[in-house]
Amino acid sequence: MIPHTQILPALITAAPAPGSFVELLGFIAAFCTTVAFVPQLIRVIRLRSARDISLPTFLLFSVGVFLWLLYGIRIGSKPVMASNAATLLLSVSILVLKLRYEALNEVKS
Amino acid sequence: MIPHTQILPALITAAPAPGSFVELLGFIAAFCTTVAFVPQLIRVIRLRSARDISLPTFLLFSVGVFLWLLYGIRIGSKPVMASNAATLLLSVSILVLKLRYEALNEVKS
Repeated sequence: MIPHTQILPALITAAPAPGSFVELLGFIAAFCTTVAFVPQLIRVIRLRSARDISLPTFLLFSVGVFLWLLYGIRIGSKPVMASNAATLLLSVSILVLKLRYEALNEVKS
Repeated sequence: MIPHTQILPALITAAPAPGSFVELLGFIAAFCTTVAFVPQLIRVIRLRSARDISLPTFLLFSVGVFLWLLYGIRIGSKPVMASNAATLLLSVSILVLKLRYEALNEVKS
């Protein structure tokens, strides 16, 4: 029998050593991909428009980030939980504003 | 001396067991957060506009995904490498189109 791992390679093969360069890399990466959505949220609020923003993108992205949050809970990693909880909050906020402005623009036209 | 891990909790505390439910959860999460950017790229191409899309968001997001890619290389995880390489390609494409349409609209006005 072919071991399962040969078909589906492990997502995280090894946990980086605490305090290592690799761990720091992960922290900076998580910080960037989380904080990145702050200017998008500000832009949508400021423009009062989210026309160019894709609804399926933010729907699927929110579902994915929610699953990453569950993943973080299951592996017991606080940074994975925290960064995904923050990203989810930002992503859902953008999604809600997209739906609101879409509805408002439909009433207008 | 306070151990480093007490100040900065480990990013990935434990690698999920190959073939486990947690690993599958990670795969589905990675699939969602990667594929999510396909409809956004299609929308920008179709509308020929990315006005509502935030430039700092896609800049910072691309940097973050690039760092996740390096993280994947360093921990030797093919799924982390593959999903972040795909996300980076999509993110940079959206970024390039944003800059192009911005420049085109400036010429027009």
